[in-house]
Amino acid sequence: MTAQAFSHTIGNDIESRIGELITRHCSPTDRSLSGLDCELLYDEVVRQACVSSEGGKRLRARLLLAFYDVLTARNPDDVARGGALDLACAIEVFQTAALVHDDIIDEADVRRGKPSAHKALASLAAARYAGSTERSAAALGSGLGIMLGDLLATASVDIVNEATSILPNYERIMSGFLTMHREVEIGQVLDLAAEHLSLDDPDELAKNSLAVFRWKTASYTTIAPIRLALLAAGVDERNASDTAEAIGVPLGLAFQLADDLLDVISNPEVTGKPVGGDIREGKRTVLLADALSDADHEQADYLKRAFTAPARDAATVDRVIALFSGTGAVSRSKERIASLWRQTQNALDDARSTLDLDDADLAALHDVCSRFIPADIRD
Amino acid sequence: MTAQAFSHTIGNDIESRIGELITRHCSPTDRSLSGLDCELLYDEVVRQACVSSEGGKRLRARLLLAFYDVLTARNPDDVARGGALDLACAIEVFQTAALVHDDIIDEADVRRGKPSAHKALASLAAARYAGSTERSAAALGSGLGIMLGDLLATASVDIVNEATSILPNYERIMSGFLTMHREVEIGQVLDLAAEHLSLDDPDELAKNSLAVFRWKTASYTTIAPIRLALLAAGVDERNASDTAEAIGVPLGLAFQLADDLLDVISNPEVTGKPVGGDIREGKRTVLLADALSDADHEQADYLKRAFTAPARDAATVDRVIALFSGTGAVSRSKERIASLWRQTQNALDDARSTLDLDDADLAALHDVCSRFIPADIRD
Repeated sequence: MTAQAFSHTIGNDIESRIGELITRHCSPTDRSLSGLDCELLYDEVVRQACVSSEGGKRLRARLLLAFYDVLTARNPDDVARGGALDLACAIEVFQTAALVHDDIIDEADVRRGKPSAHKALASLAAARYAGSTERSAAALGSGLGIMLGDLLATASVDIVNEATSILPNYERIMSGFLTMHREVEIGQVLDLAAEHLSLDDPDELAKNSLAVFRWKTASYTTIAPIRLALLAAGVDERNASDTAEAIGVPLGLAFQLADDLLDVISNPEVTGKPVGGDIREGKRTVLLADALSDADHEQADYLKRAFTAPARDAATVDRVIALFSGTGAVSRSKERIASLWRQTQNALDDARSTLDLDDADLAALHDVCSRFIPADIRD
Repeated sequence: MTAQAFSHTIGNDIESRIGELITRHCSPTDRSLSGLDCELLYDEVVRQACVSSEGGKRLRARLLLAFYDVLTARNPDDVARGGALDLACAIEVFQTAALVHDDIIDEADVRRGKPSAHKALASLAAARYAGSTERSAAALGSGLGIMLGDLLATASVDIVNEATSILPNYERIMSGFLTMHREVEIGQVLDLAAEHLSLDDPDELAKNSLAVFRWKTASYTTIAPIRLALLAAGVDERNASDTAEAIGVPLGLAFQLADDLLDVISNPEVTGKPVGGDIREGKRTVLLADALSDADHEQADYLKRAFTAPARDAATVDRVIALFSGTGAVSRSKERIASLWRQTQNALDDARSTLDLDDADLAALHDVCSRFIPADIRD
């Protein structure tokens, strides 16, 4: 099988397994609800759980499986591999749970090109309960969305509990998975706090943004997938944590920096997304911190006024993008990403001895990690 | 020690342990946030987690410990008893998580006599970010509240993961705890659906309400505490589940029916709560279903108009209370409760042989179960 065909097969496995797992772990444990009127709405919520989970790139699941497969290649075990696949799916299910709550908090209408979960549930409520006003349908959509996020978070842990029964390091895997939950939740609080940070101290702003990246993104994007893969492959706790942090922290930070950078420099005709979305929303990013840090007095004034205003129009977005380039913030972000990517590669090389890897193993891991950062930004 | 003094000691143990566990399981795993501006807000969120958890009657924790202590009295083990105490606390922490989200969904301003969590966090946001308008402070309060609920839900599972390492039936306890999470989440969705039920079919309305009680209340109030106690004491899965359902379902339903009844017939000078709060909110209850079922044409019309109106004033609340009595719905609820309490007592008596209990054991279990229903309603 070619590498591309193999990757495609893994993708299909992940995709179909996620659907199965969500349906099973979100369904009532007995049939006592059968035929009741209120059961119908619950069925719709489970359907939405599946819809919301579709359409991800599954980068996190693929990262976990790549590490697991490399480490177990000498002693493959089909049953345990099934457990590792479920761990990989559990991270994706957790991500969906987090995104559902995130979209309620950010009042986001669209996710992965479809209505966000609470919006879809509000439309459903409006259609189902003809008497409901738009406001009550919106409130019902948010209420159901909060519960949908809770149900998916519970399902993700339930999947892990089931998967770990056929894997080593049972309690450690569960503990690692719950640590990931908590880190993302902490990161979300930090992100809400960051919205209100003063723009007068760019250094503090950059530090806070990087902390948000570490907790809200790197936690479940790169650190947890590697850590859980290693634990599932039988690596001891200390080694698994140290290796996951060494590789996962720089890779996760680079991933988020690249994501923020693409928002500013990407071609909307290629990505299908309008450029400057983060700027329109007034998001505090490392790009903004770097721009403020290198701006002259007049430029800094403009940026501060733009980001403290209630909203930003298209002309302001264009001017801010120009300033991000002009002040050197874009170049500095590229340098930050390249440096973090070098750290990631060094950490991978260090893992050669600790994890007993050969050249082919290392190449496979470099490859899967490289997918988190677009090639033209990476080097 | 007298029974009262003993009960008081258990209460203190539970209370102080909950505070310890929340602080530990909600805190960042490393010190990388130290000194950052955004850490301050996170500290406030953890503080609110502790405040929100205070003031409960701890009925659920006490129920779990009573069953556990009776079953392990012949072979007491201090270390395992510590694990059981943590399981008991985990249920209370989960309840707080569920209430925090519930209050956001219901837009409730007050909980246990204090501002609800999202309201308290909104006040905090308004004070902390002087520039924020009232609307943005409210939105930030809700966002932080959603995260606080998520953090507490994660903490509750983390507490169980740690506690089970010193208890038998490890995976079963975790699975039972997660089933409880899911059942409450399903119950919450059913409850939101029930708000929109037609009032033209009182029988369907009563069935739906009882289903909500089973999933949203009995699940974590009575079924899970008994089931987890039995598993922690080494009882096998089948026996633990059957016994917990047999006792917990009728007791949990009776508990919720009594709670709804007290809302209508209690003396506000004794309870400190205004009478008829559920009616004011237009809640679909078994009382309403029973009243509609026994009402004459004119009374039914009045009730339907009252409960489909956008709001209900004091005079309407009084008239509805009079109709709940006049139609016989209050008496019928008392009969329902008495019948469910008899079922509970019979199930307890049946457990004598399956759990190998003596008279003193049974008396202790009857006593702890009886606390879920006021004496004057029970018999």
